[in-house]
Amino acid sequence: MSIESLQDLYVNCLKDAYSAEQQIIKALPKVIDAAARPELKSALSEHLEQTKTHVERLDRILESMQEDGKGKKCRGMEGILKEANELLSEEAPEEVRDAGIIDCAQHVEHYEIAAYGTLREFARQLKHEEAVRLLEQTLQEEGAADKALTGIAESGVNRDALHSAAAESSTAM
Amino acid sequence: MSIESLQDLYVNCLKDAYSAEQQIIKALPKVIDAAARPELKSALSEHLEQTKTHVERLDRILESMQEDGKGKKCRGMEGILKEANELLSEEAPEEVRDAGIIDCAQHVEHYEIAAYGTLREFARQLKHEEAVRLLEQTLQEEGAADKALTGIAESGVNRDALHSAAAESSTAM
Repeated sequence: MSIESLQDLYVNCLKDAYSAEQQIIKALPKVIDAAARPELKSALSEHLEQTKTHVERLDRILESMQEDGKGKKCRGMEGILKEANELLSEEAPEEVRDAGIIDCAQHVEHYEIAAYGTLREFARQLKHEEAVRLLEQTLQEEGAADKALTGIAESGVNRDALHSAAAESSTAM
Repeated sequence: MSIESLQDLYVNCLKDAYSAEQQIIKALPKVIDAAARPELKSALSEHLEQTKTHVERLDRILESMQEDGKGKKCRGMEGILKEANELLSEEAPEEVRDAGIIDCAQHVEHYEIAAYGTLREFARQLKHEEAVRLLEQTLQEEGAADKALTGIAESGVNRDALHSAAAESSTAM
C-alpha cells in the first residue's frame, strides 16, 4: 500500500496491530499449556480472552473506514513469537521455563503498548473520537496485563527459578 | 544452549539483548538519514550513541561471567527492524514518514524496556549487584528515549503529518 497521508499510515498500523493480535491468539494456547504455575496459566488465559476483544475493537474501527484487517503480516510480532517458540523447544526446569515465559509475554505486551500508544495518538489527530476511546481501553488493558505479569514474576516465579537448580557459586557482578 | 537454571536463562536473555543492540546500531544510520525533522534526527543520533554504551555495559556483564554476546540472533528485533525497512521503502510525504519512524523507534524502545526490565530482575535474584546497577541505568535511558519520542510526536510531527496531504473527508469513528 502507498502511504500518502496520516490516515494511510494509521490504517497501515491498524492492520499491523490486527495481524499481531491474530498471531497472539494462535500462539497463546501452546504457551498456556507449557506454563506450570497456576496463576501464570490463568493470567495468560485471561489475556487470550482479552485479545479476542482487542481484535473485535480493531474490526469495528477498520470497518468504520471501509477497511479490514487483511493484507499485512506483522513482522515484529512474528519475530517475538519465534523467540517464544525457541524457548518452549528447550528442555528446562518448569520454574525456569515459567520465568522465560513471563519474559516472552512481557515482550508481547510491550510491543502492543507501543502499537496502541501510537494508534491512539493518530486517531486523536484524525479526530476519530470513538476510535480513540476503544484504542485507549485496549492500551489500558495491555498495560495492566504487563503489570500483572511483573507481579507474578516478583511474587515467586523468579525466586523459584533461582532455587530450581543446585545453587551455583557465582563470582560474577 | 540448554537452560538448566535461572543463570542460564539470564545469559540467554543477555545475549538476546546484545544481538538486539547490535542490530539497532546497524539499522539506525539509515533511519536517521530518512528522518526529516531536525529534532527527530538529533534524538535518534543521540540514541545511537547511547546504544553503543548499552553494548559496552552488556559486554562488561557477560565478561564477568566468562561469557560473550555471541551465539544468538534476536528474532524480535529482527522483525521490528524489518517493519522499519518496509516503511522506509514506501513513498511517503516526509511529515508522514517522520510519524512512521517515531512509531518504529517506539517499538524498538519498548522491546528494550521489556528486555532490560526482565534482565534487571534476574540479576537481582542472582545477587549480581553491579549488573543490577548497569541494567537499571540502561533501563532508565530506554524509558527516557521513549518519552522523548512521544514528546517529538506530540510537539508537532503528528499534526504536520495530518496536514501534509489534502484533508480527507472522514466519516469514520
